[in-house]
Amino acid sequence: MSFLNIWKRYLRNMTHVRLIVSYYIFAVTVSVLLLSLPIAHKPGIDPSFIDTLFTAVSAVSVTGLTVVSTADTFSTQGIFILAFVLQFGGIGVMTLGTFVWLIVGKKIGLKERSLIMLDQNQLSLSGAVQLIKQIIILILLIEFIGGLVLGTYFLTYFETWQEAYLNGFFLSISATTNGGFDLTGASMIPYANDYFIQFIVILLIALGAIGFPVLIELKKFLASERGNYRFSLFAKLTTLTFLALIVLGTIFIAIFENNLFYKGKEWHQVFFYSLFQSATTRSGGLATMDISLLSDPTLLLLCALMFIGASPSSVGGGIRTTTFALNLLFVYHFAKGNKTIKIFKREIHEDDIRKSVAVTITAFLICFISVLTLSITENFSLIEILFEVCSAFGTTGLSMGITPELSTIGKSLIIALMFIGRIGVFFLLLLIGSKEKEANYHYPKERVIIG
Amino acid sequence: MSFLNIWKRYLRNMTHVRLIVSYYIFAVTVSVLLLSLPIAHKPGIDPSFIDTLFTAVSAVSVTGLTVVSTADTFSTQGIFILAFVLQFGGIGVMTLGTFVWLIVGKKIGLKERSLIMLDQNQLSLSGAVQLIKQIIILILLIEFIGGLVLGTYFLTYFETWQEAYLNGFFLSISATTNGGFDLTGASMIPYANDYFIQFIVILLIALGAIGFPVLIELKKFLASERGNYRFSLFAKLTTLTFLALIVLGTIFIAIFENNLFYKGKEWHQVFFYSLFQSATTRSGGLATMDISLLSDPTLLLLCALMFIGASPSSVGGGIRTTTFALNLLFVYHFAKGNKTIKIFKREIHEDDIRKSVAVTITAFLICFISVLTLSITENFSLIEILFEVCSAFGTTGLSMGITPELSTIGKSLIIALMFIGRIGVFFLLLLIGSKEKEANYHYPKERVIIG
Ligand SMILES: [K+]
Ligand SMILES: [K+]
Repeated sequence: MSFLNIWKRYLRNMTHVRLIVSYYIFAVTVSVLLLSLPIAHKPGIDPSFIDTLFTAVSAVSVTGLTVVSTADTFSTQGIFILAFVLQFGGIGVMTLGTFVWLIVGKKIGLKERSLIMLDQNQLSLSGAVQLIKQIIILILLIEFIGGLVLGTYFLTYFETWQEAYLNGFFLSISATTNGGFDLTGASMIPYANDYFIQFIVILLIALGAIGFPVLIELKKFLASERGNYRFSLFAKLTTLTFLALIVLGTIFIAIFENNLFYKGKEWHQVFFYSLFQSATTRSGGLATMDISLLSDPTLLLLCALMFIGASPSSVGGGIRTTTFALNLLFVYHFAKGNKTIKIFKREIHEDDIRKSVAVTITAFLICFISVLTLSITENFSLIEILFEVCSAFGTTGLSMGITPELSTIGKSLIIALMFIGRIGVFFLLLLIGSKEKEANYHYPKERVIIG
Repeated sequence: MSFLNIWKRYLRNMTHVRLIVSYYIFAVTVSVLLLSLPIAHKPGIDPSFIDTLFTAVSAVSVTGLTVVSTADTFSTQGIFILAFVLQFGGIGVMTLGTFVWLIVGKKIGLKERSLIMLDQNQLSLSGAVQLIKQIIILILLIEFIGGLVLGTYFLTYFETWQEAYLNGFFLSISATTNGGFDLTGASMIPYANDYFIQFIVILLIALGAIGFPVLIELKKFLASERGNYRFSLFAKLTTLTFLALIVLGTIFIAIFENNLFYKGKEWHQVFFYSLFQSATTRSGGLATMDISLLSDPTLLLLCALMFIGASPSSVGGGIRTTTFALNLLFVYHFAKGNKTIKIFKREIHEDDIRKSVAVTITAFLICFISVLTLSITENFSLIEILFEVCSAFGTTGLSMGITPELSTIGKSLIIALMFIGRIGVFFLLLLIGSKEKEANYHYPKERVIIG
């Protein structure tokens, strides 16, 4: 019996979800240990356990919320460890996740995920391994090119080439994995007027957050004869939603901050500030400005965008773009009295609607209870708390600046939210739902009044 | 052809929803005209049009938010007019609504409503008229007894018997219709230590907000031989949710305000403050304390309770208790992987789940967009705005005190929210959904990734 067969049998005895959660717990444990090493810190600095745990979860979940300044706390070795952890976090769920789903393929509604990615063809084990390789190569390639471009460009910013490329590659990894960590101590604010860096970073964030299935379809499309490749419904829906959120976000930020933060600014400044801050809510987490300077309407908008989050099977969190789109489609067609939901000449499956609304309602409950709890334990305004909660749930990592001042209970709650945001509410529901068999009897149906 | 037949034919040509909306628009117009009469105001006082419109919509929708002090603005005649409008608003939707549904009974999912209320028996027109009479008699009887009790009790509070009974009957009407208007200028704060008045008012609020179907079933139960009457699933579900919300609200308010508002207060004060403020969120709107003194956690809790609102077919608003309960049941059973939702030895119909989640998601969107808009137009904190929005949507009428200071845009938005809260999101969806026939072709179904 080969090693792969033993592994396969072991996996079959665990539910997918538990395996993924186990992976994350393992990754967090290793990260805590690595980040606790004395060589990881600058001389004389020794973060508390909760702060190290927070950093580890923030890195594994590629959120980017920080209770300590990365540049001031971690040594160069520490920064390498952090970049390594971001890689594991970012690539983690797709590779391991996809791997498990492809091999085990149990009937818990996840089978379709692999089917979609692979054009309705059943996949052999070697095919799965092949796909994982593709994912890893793709992300490393994107990061490498990004790091090279940014590092070379940074030669004008930094005194030594070592510094330039360390910053370039770290920024590339932080952007592509949507990690959102920074070495500047002030996110992307030092590059607020450098549109080239911003353009590259936005591109990297989008490549990480748009979801691997989409990237793979895109690769197939480019490899195929022109017009010979049909994108899946999923790819169309998620990409359209993804782009629509960025465009609408940009427009509304520009409108809301007109005469406020944008007072006296040039049109190109308004455009890039709006575009970057909109794009970063997909789940990048880097920012070109001090978020706490924004007005309440903009902050509320960003909260909503972070809550929606990134595309499924990506490096991002939140309820996911498809979930949001299906919610809107559902409500629209419900109002119309339509029984079926048609889009892009396809019909949406009823079960996917059920999933989407269950995920959304649960996410609302989780975020509401979190905000309520933090309003008891912390001494911040409602908007600061709401923003922090949405940022953690969306694994975005933007903050109005309260993260380092959170109480231990507050930090623990944010840790839990980053974790939930990363594995996704759907998996959370599968995790907490027991596996009892459904009773085989039926009661008479009875209607109730809703409206 | 009798008058009733002509009326019946007329009704058949209008959709139910449009008829109900027309009724409300008509009621608001009449109320505006009546409240604009010079005799309605105290000498020298002449409210602006937007303030009169606000008061009219607040009264017709039995919300109770006020931009002007009722006692300082309206004369005794004005107060009688207001009481009259509250009656029309409170009784309005049940009588007219039930009437329309029973007569027309088109297949838009509303037929069940009448069926439930009438124990699965088809109903003749005379039966419908009979039912309406029962509703009106029931509510007037409750109000009369309440007014008599409160008025008599008020003899110790007021100098003349006229004043005592005017205040007693107005309070009874305001409580039973969940109108939430007050003549004291400070809601129920003057009675903060009078537990008898509070007990009566809580009882009246609950009788109005628990829903007419429940009251009618209760009446049948009391009239039947012991144990011979089976309550409907709807009655059980809505009553249980209704009571659970009040009990949990009481407990959590007591916990959250411990050492804050309740510092140095006796246990009975804590109990009654908590109970009254919890019960009033069902949609009463009267308060025994200055709501703005409460801490953020309590305010957030009240927001959630107001958002949920009262039971269907009652005088209250919000998403309704059944909607909330079905949402929780749906998420729970979804996580369990159950296909059917069993409760009280009955199964919930799939369509009712669809309705509930559509209503909830739409309500979230409406409230979010409202909060966002008010955060642009008004100069209040997020919690004050959120509280006002939830209060209007739940037709509750509690406020942290910002209502009179709202801008005209702000007032208009709150007017729209009170209206939506009153007719309910389900009707709103039916109203905005066009009646086009659904296309008869089908596309292939295709799955998408959610989690
Ligand atoms: K992030
Ligand atoms: K009310």
